[in-house]
Amino acid sequence: MKTRTVPSRLYLTEKQMPEKWMNVRAVMKNKPAPMIHPGTREPLDFSGIEPVFCQEVIRQELDNDTLYVPIPSEVLRYYRMFRPSPLCRAYELEEALGTPAKIYYKFEGNNTSGSHKLNSAAPQAYYAKQQGLSGITTETGAGQWGTALSMACAHFKLDLTVFMVKVSAEQKPYRKAVMETYGATVIPSPSATTDIGKKILSDHPGTGGSLGCAISEAVEVAIKSGGAMRYTLGSVLNHVLLHQSVIGLESKAAMEALGEYPDVVIGCAGGGSNLGGIIAPFVADKLSGKNVRLLAVEPASCPSLTKGKFEYDFGDTGCITPMIKMYTLGYDFIPPPDHAGGLRYHGMSPIISKLYEDKLMDAIAVTEKEVFDAAKLFAKCETILPAPESAHAIRAAIFEAEKCKVTGEAKTILFGLSGTGYFDLAAYTKNA
Amino acid sequence: MKTRTVPSRLYLTEKQMPEKWMNVRAVMKNKPAPMIHPGTREPLDFSGIEPVFCQEVIRQELDNDTLYVPIPSEVLRYYRMFRPSPLCRAYELEEALGTPAKIYYKFEGNNTSGSHKLNSAAPQAYYAKQQGLSGITTETGAGQWGTALSMACAHFKLDLTVFMVKVSAEQKPYRKAVMETYGATVIPSPSATTDIGKKILSDHPGTGGSLGCAISEAVEVAIKSGGAMRYTLGSVLNHVLLHQSVIGLESKAAMEALGEYPDVVIGCAGGGSNLGGIIAPFVADKLSGKNVRLLAVEPASCPSLTKGKFEYDFGDTGCITPMIKMYTLGYDFIPPPDHAGGLRYHGMSPIISKLYEDKLMDAIAVTEKEVFDAAKLFAKCETILPAPESAHAIRAAIFEAEKCKVTGEAKTILFGLSGTGYFDLAAYTKNA
Repeated sequence: MKTRTVPSRLYLTEKQMPEKWMNVRAVMKNKPAPMIHPGTREPLDFSGIEPVFCQEVIRQELDNDTLYVPIPSEVLRYYRMFRPSPLCRAYELEEALGTPAKIYYKFEGNNTSGSHKLNSAAPQAYYAKQQGLSGITTETGAGQWGTALSMACAHFKLDLTVFMVKVSAEQKPYRKAVMETYGATVIPSPSATTDIGKKILSDHPGTGGSLGCAISEAVEVAIKSGGAMRYTLGSVLNHVLLHQSVIGLESKAAMEALGEYPDVVIGCAGGGSNLGGIIAPFVADKLSGKNVRLLAVEPASCPSLTKGKFEYDFGDTGCITPMIKMYTLGYDFIPPPDHAGGLRYHGMSPIISKLYEDKLMDAIAVTEKEVFDAAKLFAKCETILPAPESAHAIRAAIFEAEKCKVTGEAKTILFGLSGTGYFDLAAYTKNA
Repeated sequence: MKTRTVPSRLYLTEKQMPEKWMNVRAVMKNKPAPMIHPGTREPLDFSGIEPVFCQEVIRQELDNDTLYVPIPSEVLRYYRMFRPSPLCRAYELEEALGTPAKIYYKFEGNNTSGSHKLNSAAPQAYYAKQQGLSGITTETGAGQWGTALSMACAHFKLDLTVFMVKVSAEQKPYRKAVMETYGATVIPSPSATTDIGKKILSDHPGTGGSLGCAISEAVEVAIKSGGAMRYTLGSVLNHVLLHQSVIGLESKAAMEALGEYPDVVIGCAGGGSNLGGIIAPFVADKLSGKNVRLLAVEPASCPSLTKGKFEYDFGDTGCITPMIKMYTLGYDFIPPPDHAGGLRYHGMSPIISKLYEDKLMDAIAVTEKEVFDAAKLFAKCETILPAPESAHAIRAAIFEAEKCKVTGEAKTILFGLSGTGYFDLAAYTKNA
């Protein structure tokens, strides 16, 4: 057994917590391309987006220059109820693998949303309240984002309407129940409450819905609210990655406190919010010449980085959003059934896409079976039952640790454990 | 808003974690009565219990004298993956109540079992392994204990057979799935795998089972294993409360680090394990003359302390266990349906019973509606969705804080938040 010189779980103190987010675009030599209007193909400016998103969020979305953005004190106050999250040393996993590698993971699942999504839900709810809005709308598939936003809206006293993909609402009634406990209105989508919902219901009676349809309904309600509401999104966009940088900043600070620095930083990649968050400060280091490898892990069933094209595409299947320059499998790509619901997005964050295009980051795709084998080993070793999404990063970390076993290198591996699998047990049962 | 001088969440460092459990019986002037044989009514000694429980556990069960018991290093190693648990200051709840009181809670739900049960599961699995057993058996109702024990058995490489009350196994398939993911064999009870199960199935075809029946099956399998297995229990008994003292020891150490000491310590009371754990060091203080109030909170539907009798009774409905001197509603008491499954036990820990009999502790009973109203308010304020069991303690803490609002006293309240409600959402939906 290795000598255990660092703690199994390191929590920064409240005073050590970051008070600023990091905007990685400020250090990127090649910036991500702007969103464009699908008709004119002109870049969208503030006024073009204003009917949909909150003003402060748009400013953050369009700001490619400011490196550090202060976290509002009201958001810090909220963060302190579930942050800092622990930096964990995977001693038991290392021992099970017999690897000389040192494996660290940043665990974001220790809050009732069960994932990192609360990091962006809190500021998005706060900015909406500051703007004087009565409420916000959103969509949710697997339910983590909707849960996180319902928690944040309960705190900031804001109405929330969540369009939840109908088939998910039926399969995961408890996710719906959590959101309702926090006061959100949850509407299975497609619904008869919107024009686009009615049209879809009429064209496709009996449909189970899709994320694309739910986005369309949530945007419609916001736009037609007469300015009282705005729409919010939990991944892909630049401002979401900005908020999620708190994951990487805390990770780096905790590793520094231990005298450690990662050789490789690994994150699962769906829309890119968790990955973009954990790598943020390490991207800056890499661009300053530091030798650190960044690795995205996606499902083989939805391989946007490893099999997609880097081009302008719609963010939704309904083609009502602006066009985004990203790695994409095509807006009409329908992934085969897969239980990592949070990774089933056809595209990828423009920031992540640009970093990958510029060869600043690597990507691999892993199969569902590989993922669940890794998840079960991890659960038994490290006590935490991981979300299927997060288990993609575990799988890659194990690959890296196994390589070290062959080469004898004691590399330092850091990965993001973005959430827990308590609401994904049907998937575990299927992959038993 | 109050000035926030102490952190919202305080984690002790790994080095500050207790390395000994506290045996509260050593400081009690009047000891709890011994278990007796139902036939001879003679106190049971080591050899009388040995066929059922692990040897080290029996030594702990019978030891009324040793105040501090070292936590084995292997158990400490396991504890460090989910402990220390945070001591939380309920700033947002205080603000919502407008109370001058300071409310602290010790949160034991930040692990995959979702509760404090892992604190005793780990040593019980460890001692079984040390004794050279191949496996252990247990029963589970709501599923928290079974989940905790399956996690601990995965770590200590021990077989585990869990008899799960059939109706719970059907209502909570995901609890069963978690246990199976960790490698446990889960058998809905009554089953055809035991003699007593077969008899019950024959006498009561179609029964949904009961905790009493599941206990009987688990004990039968252990006794008939030819010494290869033993039975384990997750509450009520003295050794379980010993292991749970880690909750109170950490709480006291964290409060001392903040310069605080509680005026009142509150815990929900089912079998008494969580309550006995959080109050342990404060009982010792109280017996040394310190002015601290200890308060048990039980469901009005199963009020063993407030409405029961203090007498010898069976621990199970099947009358196969030894007799225990405790507050009890009668071994054949069947509580009305109630969603705090973990609090539906007819009796109460002998230690808690004796402290209550000797007027060292108070008790109140609260209704299901009061409990869920408190749970929902707490969830919205403090972000954590509490287990219905734990919400009994929240309800009482709110009562205390409201009294302070009337009197103007800035009392310091500490309560145990023993677990999360992620698997109890049907109950939340019912009480929406």
